[in-house]
Amino acid sequence: MLLSEIAKLLEIDYSGSDCEITKMSTLSKATHSDITFLSEKRYIKELEGTKAGAIIVDPSLSDRVPSHCAALITTEPYLKMALLSKYFAPAILDENAPAPIVGENCRISPKAHLENGVVIGNNCTIMAGAYVGLHVSIGDNTTIYPNATIYAQCHIGNACIIHAGAVIGSDGFGFAHTATGEHVKIYQNGNVILEDDVEIGANSTIDCAVFGSTIIKTGAKIDNLVQIGHNCVVGEYSLLVSQVGLAGSTTLGRNVVIGGQSATAGHLNIAPFTTFAARSGVTKDIKESGQTFAGFPLMEHRKWLKLQGRIAKLLK
Amino acid sequence: MLLSEIAKLLEIDYSGSDCEITKMSTLSKATHSDITFLSEKRYIKELEGTKAGAIIVDPSLSDRVPSHCAALITTEPYLKMALLSKYFAPAILDENAPAPIVGENCRISPKAHLENGVVIGNNCTIMAGAYVGLHVSIGDNTTIYPNATIYAQCHIGNACIIHAGAVIGSDGFGFAHTATGEHVKIYQNGNVILEDDVEIGANSTIDCAVFGSTIIKTGAKIDNLVQIGHNCVVGEYSLLVSQVGLAGSTTLGRNVVIGGQSATAGHLNIAPFTTFAARSGVTKDIKESGQTFAGFPLMEHRKWLKLQGRIAKLLK
Amino acid sequence: MLLSEIAKLLEIDYSGSDCEITKMSTLSKATHSDITFLSEKRYIKELEGTKAGAIIVDPSLSDRVPSHCAALITTEPYLKMALLSKYFAPAILDENAPAPIVGENCRISPKAHLENGVVIGNNCTIMAGAYVGLHVSIGDNTTIYPNATIYAQCHIGNACIIHAGAVIGSDGFGFAHTATGEHVKIYQNGNVILEDDVEIGANSTIDCAVFGSTIIKTGAKIDNLVQIGHNCVVGEYSLLVSQVGLAGSTTLGRNVVIGGQSATAGHLNIAPFTTFAARSGVTKDIKESGQTFAGFPLMEHRKWLKLQGRIAKLLK
Repeated sequence: MLLSEIAKLLEIDYSGSDCEITKMSTLSKATHSDITFLSEKRYIKELEGTKAGAIIVDPSLSDRVPSHCAALITTEPYLKMALLSKYFAPAILDENAPAPIVGENCRISPKAHLENGVVIGNNCTIMAGAYVGLHVSIGDNTTIYPNATIYAQCHIGNACIIHAGAVIGSDGFGFAHTATGEHVKIYQNGNVILEDDVEIGANSTIDCAVFGSTIIKTGAKIDNLVQIGHNCVVGEYSLLVSQVGLAGSTTLGRNVVIGGQSATAGHLNIAPFTTFAARSGVTKDIKESGQTFAGFPLMEHRKWLKLQGRIAKLLK
Repeated sequence: MLLSEIAKLLEIDYSGSDCEITKMSTLSKATHSDITFLSEKRYIKELEGTKAGAIIVDPSLSDRVPSHCAALITTEPYLKMALLSKYFAPAILDENAPAPIVGENCRISPKAHLENGVVIGNNCTIMAGAYVGLHVSIGDNTTIYPNATIYAQCHIGNACIIHAGAVIGSDGFGFAHTATGEHVKIYQNGNVILEDDVEIGANSTIDCAVFGSTIIKTGAKIDNLVQIGHNCVVGEYSLLVSQVGLAGSTTLGRNVVIGGQSATAGHLNIAPFTTFAARSGVTKDIKESGQTFAGFPLMEHRKWLKLQGRIAKLLK
Repeated sequence: MLLSEIAKLLEIDYSGSDCEITKMSTLSKATHSDITFLSEKRYIKELEGTKAGAIIVDPSLSDRVPSHCAALITTEPYLKMALLSKYFAPAILDENAPAPIVGENCRISPKAHLENGVVIGNNCTIMAGAYVGLHVSIGDNTTIYPNATIYAQCHIGNACIIHAGAVIGSDGFGFAHTATGEHVKIYQNGNVILEDDVEIGANSTIDCAVFGSTIIKTGAKIDNLVQIGHNCVVGEYSLLVSQVGLAGSTTLGRNVVIGGQSATAGHLNIAPFTTFAARSGVTKDIKESGQTFAGFPLMEHRKWLKLQGRIAKLLK
């Protein structure tokens, strides 16, 4: 899409030179044919280093835009980005993509559905009702149970098990808001990557990334009815028990254990070998590895046990 | 079904005049060919104004039944209503209903399933494994992802997005109980209405109404693994984050925001522009709009923060 | 598989007499052609009475193994059992099993999928996208809604209702752990049994047993998005409200009522006619029937109400 067309679509005055824009990206990853956006001052360093061909930017920040980058100036860059995202949303169906390629010794149910562009390794089992989206790749020795859904562009490793009804790659819950309170969907460009030997429980949901990937690393095991938000990273050999929820962009180190019905806020970093008791509510980074926590608000597990004693005394 | 047959089926003595009963309904909405029920005194005003042709009613209330309304008198009206509901349950399949009608420019996967009586507008995408039930209507520009299920009779608006595995219109969790503790299912007569521009997350569930409709209003956005009980109304532009649960018959005003893993009790009214922090437990009406709450039991958010400070002191 | 082959596979030195092993089992249920395991001293009574043909056992316990039972001695019996479980995992597909048998007056959608070995009674409805696994049996008058999944070997009783997206018989969340923190899957041998008149809500998940059966007894009703762990027993006429989670091996008596978003730890016994308010967290056995509880940690409901009063005072 031409930059001039984008400006017109978003109702932004623009009279600079025109160029072809092929996709949206982040400040740090954008190339000369990409458009990016900036609304907050704290990313100013990334702005100065961006290679983007164009940017949607707040007037207060526009004088810091590098000269090779065309600026579409608006007081609502986040909202305009959301409006534009619809036009660059990746396809979910494509009749021109190549037919699926399936390796040796696979059992693919005729009642499963493989979209075009799918590539599947050897010794895989894809059961009836499973859905494998456009351009999804799957390694060797992986089993996908009935009625599981894998959205377009996701990558599934070797020896993974995806249980019935699990959803891999659904849209992250991201919206910009108008001044009058309507929500404008931010179409999601990213995907989900499951590395090797990952198991995903029945009816769990893992959202794709806005840009880039939500990643479940090697050997991580996720129980039933768990929610993983967009852009999360679940470390190697982590264990997430049933009904856990991770808000967006949270990163778990390796061998993190999260008890049932626990949750984390977004944008957190959790040190390796951290254990959370059931129903923990995690709202801050955990920097030191190997500790055990409980409660909401979160505290060291032994403090939580002590607190329960103190509360019990209130009743006497 | 003849009223005399109903009386026999429910083992209620009845010797009044007979009439044909075509459906069950509420006191206020019933017409002359409907049967309704009353077990509790507090609906006595509605009883006196009902246009129902017949009623299943407690003996203590039977002298207030209008003369045009035949009374089946029993000490267990709620249980008898439940037993009867099975016979008036709406069909889930009907080979005599008309074939589906699909608008222009739609992409309907051959592995999706449209039951009879379905009507779909223009520019819709219905992906493999999606199920669209008997007499469901869908507007224009709506996308239904794989393995989503829409039960019979539901209405889906324009520009809606229903993610994989979501279930729209499943039965509300309603039972009458016998004196010995068995549960008798109350078959659900109602449906779910999604207005326009509604997004429903992966594996979320929205129960149909007992009578009437569960309604998700224009522009509301619901994240993954959310549960909406029967007869709820979710206001315009409300945002429900992952793993939230609303019990039956709760009404949210517009632009209500509910953080992850929160829940509400049933039969509540929540004022517009109310915000609940993650994990709130809402058990009372919120009458004043624009406030922010947290905790379980619920309190103003700033009080909740203060309480956490006080509790922390208990540990010192 | 020959015992000598098993020893080789698990890298355990074994020079005793050889025999054919046909399956894995528990100490108490194993027969002469089964292999079992023991890592913990507290099951020593069961060890002495076992009829197993072979056992994987810790050196500290090996002198208590009965003489008819061949001992594979290792310091990691639990881990070795997990490694072996993969080789004895029950089949999920079997092209040599007999074609499905369907009773009279059933409505089976051509878009449902019945694996081989399925046996279905009379008057059942199996809707589009439903999956019925290998050797599953279903009684009379049962309805399975779209996109529900029933794993291999499960038994579904008469007059059951399984709502859309529900998953019956998914693998329990069980792993052994290596010294360096990797997880080895314990393949699940058991199944799920739904007795008669059971209703399972949309997108709920019920895990199969490791050995034996997870059982949902007659007349129990389970709402949407509920998680039932492996080897649980849900008593007759119990009611589990939406988003409840039961950890593995917990047994509920009859007519237990569990409010929404509650959870139980594993290996608990809950007395009949116990009621838990919404969001209860149950970590101990309940031995006396007929009580009402709330809170986490759990307490009698009236104490919980009192505690809330005391906490409120902290704010004054």
